[in-house]
Amino acid sequence: MDYSKLFEDYRIKVENSLDSLVTQKEPVSLYEPIRYVLDGGGKRIRPILTLFTCEALGAPPEPAFNAAIAIEVLHNFTLVHDDIMDNADTRRGRMTVHKKWDRDVAILSGDQLVGIAYNKLLKTNSLRIREIMDVFTNGILEVCEGQGLDKEFEFRKEVSIDEYLKMIEKKTSKLLETCTVIGALIADAGGEQINAVRNYAKNLGLAFQIQDDLLDIFADEKKFGKKTGGDIAEGKKTYLLLKAAELVTGKNDRESIKKILNKEPGIGEKDFILNIQRIYEEYGIFDESKKAIENFTLEADKSLELISTGGGREMLKWFSAMLLNRNY
Amino acid sequence: MDYSKLFEDYRIKVENSLDSLVTQKEPVSLYEPIRYVLDGGGKRIRPILTLFTCEALGAPPEPAFNAAIAIEVLHNFTLVHDDIMDNADTRRGRMTVHKKWDRDVAILSGDQLVGIAYNKLLKTNSLRIREIMDVFTNGILEVCEGQGLDKEFEFRKEVSIDEYLKMIEKKTSKLLETCTVIGALIADAGGEQINAVRNYAKNLGLAFQIQDDLLDIFADEKKFGKKTGGDIAEGKKTYLLLKAAELVTGKNDRESIKKILNKEPGIGEKDFILNIQRIYEEYGIFDESKKAIENFTLEADKSLELISTGGGREMLKWFSAMLLNRNY
Repeated sequence: MDYSKLFEDYRIKVENSLDSLVTQKEPVSLYEPIRYVLDGGGKRIRPILTLFTCEALGAPPEPAFNAAIAIEVLHNFTLVHDDIMDNADTRRGRMTVHKKWDRDVAILSGDQLVGIAYNKLLKTNSLRIREIMDVFTNGILEVCEGQGLDKEFEFRKEVSIDEYLKMIEKKTSKLLETCTVIGALIADAGGEQINAVRNYAKNLGLAFQIQDDLLDIFADEKKFGKKTGGDIAEGKKTYLLLKAAELVTGKNDRESIKKILNKEPGIGEKDFILNIQRIYEEYGIFDESKKAIENFTLEADKSLELISTGGGREMLKWFSAMLLNRNY
Repeated sequence: MDYSKLFEDYRIKVENSLDSLVTQKEPVSLYEPIRYVLDGGGKRIRPILTLFTCEALGAPPEPAFNAAIAIEVLHNFTLVHDDIMDNADTRRGRMTVHKKWDRDVAILSGDQLVGIAYNKLLKTNSLRIREIMDVFTNGILEVCEGQGLDKEFEFRKEVSIDEYLKMIEKKTSKLLETCTVIGALIADAGGEQINAVRNYAKNLGLAFQIQDDLLDIFADEKKFGKKTGGDIAEGKKTYLLLKAAELVTGKNDRESIKKILNKEPGIGEKDFILNIQRIYEEYGIFDESKKAIENFTLEADKSLELISTGGGREMLKWFSAMLLNRNY
């Protein structure tokens, strides 16, 4: 089957739905930034994953549409607030809300997005609405915990790979689990199927985040849409940096890695970043990261074995391949 | 019946429940401020109003307990984020979260409080859970709109009394409506009863907010716990100020009122505030405000006539009298 066509069909439907989601105009200071955020594009991976999962488990995807949109809105809430905390000036090539308006507008419109998300979710027609609400709420709780850990790591000089994985499981995987589990609940799936898609999403999220870390330093700037080495310049604790802290042995090279961990001046300079690229390649950090991505992807796809329909397995396998083969 | 004893009993139960609500410790940067916020005291008016309404409509209050706590948690979320936006250093005599920790901690712990609130609400055992969730979600949406309007008013030089009332209906009344309507839904009340307690809460909220505006300038500093004239010093558009903009005729006195509306320097000085007190008394602003409070209180109590049990009417009448006879 032509899943990329299906993906594109769903993406357009999601865009249209987001376009017409908020019709209210006043207060202007609230609804203008909200429409700006929802209109900001992006891959719309989360709503489409929700629809795909529902379909993969043998149910029509339409009843999952409100929930799909709700999760995308929730995702956008996290972006608006994270951008304040990260002092990010741009997102997807446009100014962030707190930059285009101000901090207060960004806080408040983020808050409102949570309400809008629940409002949309509550339109879901399912006997399992309570479970759906529980999963969604748990998603918020874990994503906030993940963000809390991420911010704490910024102030720490040492973070283990295990701690890092625990953090990204909350910050990145959890919302993908919300997508697949809610998709499965709307498909009225049984416990085994639900666990399968939960595990799939968990590993997909881990692979996705490590890939994001990798692309930050090894991607084509133009295709990726972000400046190469941005994570290094900010001293972010990425999978690559923490792996380097483990594996790099040469004295000067260790000093360079420490400089990032301690957020010393100069880590944003081009030469410094080029040198880190060299270190990452020389000590096999690049290869180790690729291997981790592959392993988590394999683990994700393995989870799909429990899915009862061949078409469903194929569909979600296509999804993980699509998501993780990006080299932009 | 001794309603003050009942109120105190419920207050203690609410405090105990809030104390044990969050047992998780990590991330420390998230759960430490959350426990700090929930432990911050306050009158706990909202959860108790929820329990009182459920009881007033002839049902046992226990099944409303989770929802009552959820609303209090939601209220605390709004306080944490509002305090950032208002640059408030203290709340109930303690440092605000963004002051004690920082902006990012306050944003994130506020967000987490929303998740905790929904999580608690979802423990409610009621066949009308969907309606309950709708009302709760609508509460968030309207409270954010109210806060958005309030912030917009800060930048405007003219605001009508009607606009002001619309704003406080969203910002203050709506959450009280959430309390009474959810209390009524858990009591499985009919549409007429629900409308009665909604209208009661709406008017109670309006009276309560105007009283808050009044106390800011005419209350005993020690009893009220806030500095007299704080709203004037900040150029806040209160009921009194907007009424003064309508009624004050003397040239010099109009200039003084304009100075506040334009947030000119000097409006925080003691002599200036004393002069405004004189203006408010001389032009009958003080009396007009008291009359407005009385009228909304009467309107609130009138709504109770539709409540089917005499005990229920009496109970909620006691509640509004208790809330609005404070002179601290």
